[in-house]
Amino acid sequence: MTYRKLSQVGEIALLEKIKKRFGKKSRTVLCGIGDDASVLKPFNKCLLLTTDMMVEGVHFDLAFTTPFQLGFKLVSVNVSDIYAMGGRPSHVLLNIAVQKDTGSEFVDLFFQGIQEAMDRYHTSLVGGDLSASPKDMSLSATLVGHADRYLQRSGAKVGDRIYVTGTTGDSACGLQLLKKINRQVPLSRKSGRLNSIPSALRTRLVRIGLSWDVAEPLVRRHLMPEARNPGQFVRDATSMIDISDGLLIDLTRLCKESGTGAKLYEEKIPLSPEMEKAARQLGLSPLSLALAGGEDYELLFTAPPGKKVNAIYIGDIIKSKMVMVDRKGREKIFSARGYQHFQGRNKRQ
Amino acid sequence: MTYRKLSQVGEIALLEKIKKRFGKKSRTVLCGIGDDASVLKPFNKCLLLTTDMMVEGVHFDLAFTTPFQLGFKLVSVNVSDIYAMGGRPSHVLLNIAVQKDTGSEFVDLFFQGIQEAMDRYHTSLVGGDLSASPKDMSLSATLVGHADRYLQRSGAKVGDRIYVTGTTGDSACGLQLLKKINRQVPLSRKSGRLNSIPSALRTRLVRIGLSWDVAEPLVRRHLMPEARNPGQFVRDATSMIDISDGLLIDLTRLCKESGTGAKLYEEKIPLSPEMEKAARQLGLSPLSLALAGGEDYELLFTAPPGKKVNAIYIGDIIKSKMVMVDRKGREKIFSARGYQHFQGRNKRQ
Repeated sequence: MTYRKLSQVGEIALLEKIKKRFGKKSRTVLCGIGDDASVLKPFNKCLLLTTDMMVEGVHFDLAFTTPFQLGFKLVSVNVSDIYAMGGRPSHVLLNIAVQKDTGSEFVDLFFQGIQEAMDRYHTSLVGGDLSASPKDMSLSATLVGHADRYLQRSGAKVGDRIYVTGTTGDSACGLQLLKKINRQVPLSRKSGRLNSIPSALRTRLVRIGLSWDVAEPLVRRHLMPEARNPGQFVRDATSMIDISDGLLIDLTRLCKESGTGAKLYEEKIPLSPEMEKAARQLGLSPLSLALAGGEDYELLFTAPPGKKVNAIYIGDIIKSKMVMVDRKGREKIFSARGYQHFQGRNKRQ
Repeated sequence: MTYRKLSQVGEIALLEKIKKRFGKKSRTVLCGIGDDASVLKPFNKCLLLTTDMMVEGVHFDLAFTTPFQLGFKLVSVNVSDIYAMGGRPSHVLLNIAVQKDTGSEFVDLFFQGIQEAMDRYHTSLVGGDLSASPKDMSLSATLVGHADRYLQRSGAKVGDRIYVTGTTGDSACGLQLLKKINRQVPLSRKSGRLNSIPSALRTRLVRIGLSWDVAEPLVRRHLMPEARNPGQFVRDATSMIDISDGLLIDLTRLCKESGTGAKLYEEKIPLSPEMEKAARQLGLSPLSLALAGGEDYELLFTAPPGKKVNAIYIGDIIKSKMVMVDRKGREKIFSARGYQHFQGRNKRQ
């Protein structure tokens, strides 16, 4: 099978391929890809909308990201925002600007990643735009979702408990690992062992002093994050946000919107054994990664005490101030500075 | 007033400015800018969604586009797609990736242009994403709209008349003019004379041999196109598309989707006197510009004969083939090759 460059394939042929791959009619789509706009059936639920960009050299590095992983992540990070509102994702629009000499194989694999993620989240593609880009690849997705009851950041009440849906810091640790590995890492669709690990990758892992079993879940959390479905928490949660910029900064945002403070218990912050092991090997602090590392896409939410919540309890909403209680019971005020575009070093890379 | 660079302003401060400018609650917005996703009230109409990108060096050249014009156009071209479905635009999401050292004045003026357009089309901003960009500016907007009855490209019937809402070729001619002028052209909000034309601009126009009165409407059509509201045509139209890539290619698309051909009458194609004058001065064919020039954002639609339609009748839907009838009554088959990304020369610049 030979692959041509986009400059040889052309926009119209590429659009035809996309239509063929994604153009199936669905129950909620009256008019999909290929007209001036897509048309969805009226909904009697609240309509949720979100959009997120991924820019080459800012959000991703093709030295260690495969096109499949890129497509998967683009959908996941946007779905995560719909989930963080307590909603269900339904439809996707894509904007893709790539260089003319991009291979059509790259685009095919990218769309396979898009499709893998869309299937996983039960969403369908309804529109988008393709463009040439003079240099860096620029991607964005717009996600449409729905909710009967939506959750804002602003609903936390003093006395509520703070929960997180999984371990944090894994993605940031995975990124540090990837920078050391500095090559693309093949990942199976579902987490687990690969049948064959490329020998160059194996060699690099040996040099770093980590096994594939430790590295794989961390690298996966960075390259192919899965958004957490909030379904079981929606009824009880009072506020919700997804952890994209780091636990502390995202908690600070939630508290700012709610007009509250928070008290976190260091010993309750969930750390994965793989992350603790890899962080030590890389000379990094597991706790710092868990508190400040971004792109975990776990949900952070609050619920009144007394509710039976199937998530990890990490702290309490208090009247004011952001307080961390260490393992010896000492309290310390913390301030969160997370990832900010346009300033200083880019933490996401 | 001194302006700082985005790297000094930072993302959070910029977001606060955007929230302040656009964050007004509206009747249909339950939760706007500043949460994980925006929340709109349920609608009992069909929901329309469209998204379009504008990439620096592909869709625009900052040598002759002001940030205000850029913002205005980004909204207009997307609104045009909602209008082309017979819909009403309502809400906007923006994605903006710019270099860190972009001046905050640029961003302010850009948002003024966004606001000017959003006000004109009665839409409100409900979300978006900001990112640094390593090099070229990459912009996109997603437009949400609604319709009781929507119009697809596929509804044209043999015997229907073909209409266009205004003159075409003006934007392409304006672009050619701008390339000769090769500097930013200040435009008043509404079309008409400027109180003061910069002397350097005046000098260049004299050199080209055109007056401001001739140049202004053409340049305006390229830099600040206005989308055409289809309101008065929706009831009678059978199919509709907006002219973004050129009259012939967009008509060909409409006919392909409808499974029909078309017969166009050369003498009926509307040309503006300014375009005819400027084209002659630039050594270009007015008819070619009108047929193949892109970015006019006029609506092209079909309606059954016998309907009283307040637009320009330019041809008829026939069974098959795309035919042009010249001024002498001779028929010629035409094929349309419009703007395609990834291939050859970029016609939009």
